[in-house]
Amino acid sequence: MANGVLRGINGPADVKALDARDLPALCGEIRQTLITYGTLHGGHIGSNLALVEATVALHRVFDSPHDRIVFDVSHQSYVHKMLTGRARAFTDPEMFGSVTGFSNPRESPHDWFVTGHTGTSISLACGLAKARDLGADDGGGNVIALIGDGALSSAVAFEGLNNAAEQGGNLIIIVNDNEMSIAANVGGMYGNLAALRQSEGRCPTNIFRSFGMDYRYVGRGNDVDALVEAFSSVKGIDHPVVVHIHTVKGLGLPHGRMDPDDGGARADADAGRPRSLGQLPEAGRCEANHWIDPVSKAGSPQGSRKHYGSLAMDYLSARMESIPGLVVISPATPGSNGITPEFRSRAGVHYVDTGITEEHAAAFASGIAKAGGTPVLATSATFFQRAFDQLQQEVALNATPVTILVFAGGISSTDNTHSGAGDIAMFGNIAGMTCLAPICEREFIDMLAWATGTRDHGAVAIRVPGDAILTAERSRPYPLFASGGGSSQGGPETTRSGSRFDPRSCDERCPFASYRVTRSGSDVAILGLSDTYPLAENIMRALEESDPPIHATLVDVRQFSQVDDTTLETLRLHHRLVVTMENGQREGGWGEKITAYYANHLPPAATDEPTAEKAVIAAAIAGPGTEDDRLRKAHDVQCPRVLNFGAAKEFTDRVPLPELEERYGLTCPNIVRSIRQALAALGGADPKTA
Amino acid sequence: MANGVLRGINGPADVKALDARDLPALCGEIRQTLITYGTLHGGHIGSNLALVEATVALHRVFDSPHDRIVFDVSHQSYVHKMLTGRARAFTDPEMFGSVTGFSNPRESPHDWFVTGHTGTSISLACGLAKARDLGADDGGGNVIALIGDGALSSAVAFEGLNNAAEQGGNLIIIVNDNEMSIAANVGGMYGNLAALRQSEGRCPTNIFRSFGMDYRYVGRGNDVDALVEAFSSVKGIDHPVVVHIHTVKGLGLPHGRMDPDDGGARADADAGRPRSLGQLPEAGRCEANHWIDPVSKAGSPQGSRKHYGSLAMDYLSARMESIPGLVVISPATPGSNGITPEFRSRAGVHYVDTGITEEHAAAFASGIAKAGGTPVLATSATFFQRAFDQLQQEVALNATPVTILVFAGGISSTDNTHSGAGDIAMFGNIAGMTCLAPICEREFIDMLAWATGTRDHGAVAIRVPGDAILTAERSRPYPLFASGGGSSQGGPETTRSGSRFDPRSCDERCPFASYRVTRSGSDVAILGLSDTYPLAENIMRALEESDPPIHATLVDVRQFSQVDDTTLETLRLHHRLVVTMENGQREGGWGEKITAYYANHLPPAATDEPTAEKAVIAAAIAGPGTEDDRLRKAHDVQCPRVLNFGAAKEFTDRVPLPELEERYGLTCPNIVRSIRQALAALGGADPKTA
Repeated sequence: MANGVLRGINGPADVKALDARDLPALCGEIRQTLITYGTLHGGHIGSNLALVEATVALHRVFDSPHDRIVFDVSHQSYVHKMLTGRARAFTDPEMFGSVTGFSNPRESPHDWFVTGHTGTSISLACGLAKARDLGADDGGGNVIALIGDGALSSAVAFEGLNNAAEQGGNLIIIVNDNEMSIAANVGGMYGNLAALRQSEGRCPTNIFRSFGMDYRYVGRGNDVDALVEAFSSVKGIDHPVVVHIHTVKGLGLPHGRMDPDDGGARADADAGRPRSLGQLPEAGRCEANHWIDPVSKAGSPQGSRKHYGSLAMDYLSARMESIPGLVVISPATPGSNGITPEFRSRAGVHYVDTGITEEHAAAFASGIAKAGGTPVLATSATFFQRAFDQLQQEVALNATPVTILVFAGGISSTDNTHSGAGDIAMFGNIAGMTCLAPICEREFIDMLAWATGTRDHGAVAIRVPGDAILTAERSRPYPLFASGGGSSQGGPETTRSGSRFDPRSCDERCPFASYRVTRSGSDVAILGLSDTYPLAENIMRALEESDPPIHATLVDVRQFSQVDDTTLETLRLHHRLVVTMENGQREGGWGEKITAYYANHLPPAATDEPTAEKAVIAAAIAGPGTEDDRLRKAHDVQCPRVLNFGAAKEFTDRVPLPELEERYGLTCPNIVRSIRQALAALGGADPKTA
Repeated sequence: MANGVLRGINGPADVKALDARDLPALCGEIRQTLITYGTLHGGHIGSNLALVEATVALHRVFDSPHDRIVFDVSHQSYVHKMLTGRARAFTDPEMFGSVTGFSNPRESPHDWFVTGHTGTSISLACGLAKARDLGADDGGGNVIALIGDGALSSAVAFEGLNNAAEQGGNLIIIVNDNEMSIAANVGGMYGNLAALRQSEGRCPTNIFRSFGMDYRYVGRGNDVDALVEAFSSVKGIDHPVVVHIHTVKGLGLPHGRMDPDDGGARADADAGRPRSLGQLPEAGRCEANHWIDPVSKAGSPQGSRKHYGSLAMDYLSARMESIPGLVVISPATPGSNGITPEFRSRAGVHYVDTGITEEHAAAFASGIAKAGGTPVLATSATFFQRAFDQLQQEVALNATPVTILVFAGGISSTDNTHSGAGDIAMFGNIAGMTCLAPICEREFIDMLAWATGTRDHGAVAIRVPGDAILTAERSRPYPLFASGGGSSQGGPETTRSGSRFDPRSCDERCPFASYRVTRSGSDVAILGLSDTYPLAENIMRALEESDPPIHATLVDVRQFSQVDDTTLETLRLHHRLVVTMENGQREGGWGEKITAYYANHLPPAATDEPTAEKAVIAAAIAGPGTEDDRLRKAHDVQCPRVLNFGAAKEFTDRVPLPELEERYGLTCPNIVRSIRQALAALGGADPKTA
């Protein structure tokens, strides 16, 4: 083979020009290319392997981009990319990574949308078709949505299906049924899909027809000739139709090839898989084919998601019987968050994978909590966006004790559809939602224990620590206040029990409501939220080692849902500068609330009446220096300057994390420099209090 | 009748104790009560009238609260309230309004959740059932979700249906099929519901069965005996079942009774309505039974939603042919937003009601825009929350020129499920989304014209002006800069063309990107976003008339997606105080961004190097006074104080708007006082520049 046919394919026209007898060879080459690519580079191979023949048939029959193909989630568009001029990104190791893992209009006119969440292709296609029917475009051709069976369970896909028939006109929805979502498919409708497969599409109960759609079935979904015939028969159709094709996910992969660490996933994939295509190479496995990164896997330790996720599951696993009605809920992608097949099997009825259904999962969790159970809802920050309304209405407004584990919050090197950079702005601005941000393993588990062990609180979102924290925990005594290292001023005893800047007791409703001063200094206070806390420690050390040394106060804020005014008021007396850091979007995020707090809360000294508090402040600013110095100090006491560090409001696409940190100034040298400059501008680098 | 039976009902036990022959009389009394209540007080009468018999039967058969009934949307829970000890809230005019329009656990142990958005009842019920099956509650009884056919089209409802069968165990989903959503039902599945009705539930295509559910049909859904029998047959069932009941919305209402202004709505309701219950009183009409407030209707003018919505529709209506592929999209509730039946009928294919499907609507809009069309997506702020992910991913990330009309943003007297107080924090923090905030009719239409008339921009959300603006436009020369009234310093010519504080031209990509200084003053600049702009004008006048007068600068910021640093830098030189006002949640909102801007951007004077800018600042602070005064002034120039006014982060439930404004300090006297105090604290009330 050796890419003999694929090498000649520079666009859809070349697929059309092939002799029909060469199509299977092309498919074979593509499949082999995908496997080699996946082995060397990683990627969403499984769904693409299932779709080789269908994609070749699509470009054989339809005329892209005049005919418009919308790929749902779009991580199954690799074959499409190969056939539309981007094959080298998959055949040439030097070009690996030169195209995105999702469809992208900037790469090619054959790509219509960037989509990385699930279920929206039908609605997007409805829109393309509507504009066509109004004559807004070039008088365009067929509109095709290609959606996998796993994505079908997501809310918006149903809305799309329900609207498609109503809209009318040419619209072809290809349902790629490989009997497999990321983990197993979940939901009653999959029984119907199975019945449709078994009856070769003739089962009278038909979910697609019940939505008013016309319907065709192609059992041999990995037979390119059968697909060409089926697609040809609906080309130019004058009404919406579903073409249900039965494919094999991971077709061509030998068992166990891709992910030797994750043996349990095999059970997911093998269960219930009919071997109707048994003569073909062995089918791949489900989770094993998702989010593979073979390079990072080569002997390197787990990332933070799996690490802290596993810790949480271990904690909960030991309490299955003692925590009332404990239910871990994962709206798909459990494996990415350390919810291993072993855990799931052990948890039994205490674990529910709801499928790709974040909205249901959130409301479901609220229901469990309302009835006395203890739900723990876990998924990544980017997917929680899909349940924003349910988090606000069904969960927060109803004040149900739901525990939410937010994975992969914050900026990262990921693509633009999976960024968690908006998580703080999203969760932190929902009324009634307690948002916790542990900065180490121990704090994380303490918070999880509180959230799941008590009920006198509403919803609690815990931002699972990220790689910065995991790296710190693995590579050095961290955090300093726990390990006793580092500070010359605040030993572990002082700081563990809360310094003089931490007057709140822990007996309030949320024991993490008050910021914890982990190191007492003066002049500048550094508040490092969540994953930026290790950086805050580094900055503190660097300031201390610089000349003249600056002894910064360090604060573990622990939560981002409520400003701790008591601690801020105490900090005001001893600090001219307060620095906030967060690894999420600054606008709408957390740090700006600190800035606004100081701006809007004048201390009593700023009013005209003499008060007892004025005496305190007068004492605080007393000391050597001229009258001017004191005047300036009084001004400082009124309103400390606040500097906020965080991410810009933007979409970032696979930008390496260090580059993002550089861009946003979230680096030790930059923040040290900014602190020195700000203190200088405020009137000298000397500490204002001893 | 005269409430003879109803008077004896103080709880479900009393319904059970009745002689079966008295049930129809009870239903009759309830229906009459609802009609009287609706006529005098308003409310969601239509759906409640349909549910009279079903609710009576529910409480006859099941044992609430041991058996748990979850009302979807819950505005159809009036009858339930009457039967659970809250009848006087409907029978006694003095008690009208003493219970909420939604189910509410604070009112009664028979109410499980506060829900006001649609489609979540199935998922909530799944959660209650799951906790029951884990033994987390009292060993509870049946779990029942009651959902209307209109709500069934919302995304999360499908997710719930898909998960219910998978979960197993006792779960009873009652589908109240009154063939009617708020406007007409939209979607292919309604064809299936019709087929099920026509076949008395025997049609082989059955959407509920395709989700794996067991299924029963009750054609006589307003026959209490039939319902008692049907509910009895599923009581204690060991698996999930759908009971599909056919009811008549608004049963008992004469035609045209409720909403004489909205004649066109009749067409919505009458179309396709079978008269199978023709012997009963006339069926009500759809939109006419939604959001009725007869008191406010009595001769008073339209509210802002309908007013500005109608204006927008008039504008678009005249351009149906000239704007390419114009499509107005309303995910239900069109009437509330001035999208009248007349408009819809005139618009034809240029109008799409997608049903209660915000997610589909947003993705659909993006598809239309991508293909060259011009979508205008309109609904209320609270419902846009449901499409948060699609707004971010399919719309903003894909930078498609979608125009979004956000109605009912900001704080209001509404219930806690429909508040728009979070709209600024939600839209304003989405990367790539342009968020416009017109402060008068003319600006609104200008913005709509730009958003729909040009394509070289991404998504544009326009916050439709609210009642404060409408009142100002109706009652006085407003805005001052347009009418030429008010300011002694800035006449209409000066301000219309942009004052000296508005150096940006309008030829940038968004002509509304720069803040517009509408009145040039000094010392304090008042930035009134959106609906707070009329208040800003009042404050400006009050300051001017006070002694000594303060001549404030007034700014129409026009957008809340991007800080206009040029204008803020210019304001810095002439103002010691900047005041921001917004009628939405302050945390995560807009004003705090202004505060953060100044905090994080030191002017050149704050560095050590002598610069040309320092000379400017030195000149600015030159003048009479002591050295101390000048020092203080220099400090002021470095960082003007910013005060932010906006709503707290909280859920509010039917709190009168004036009370909320008082609570949040969003009143003229409070802000005038705050400005005077802040200026005094900053060192005297004299203007710092002439």
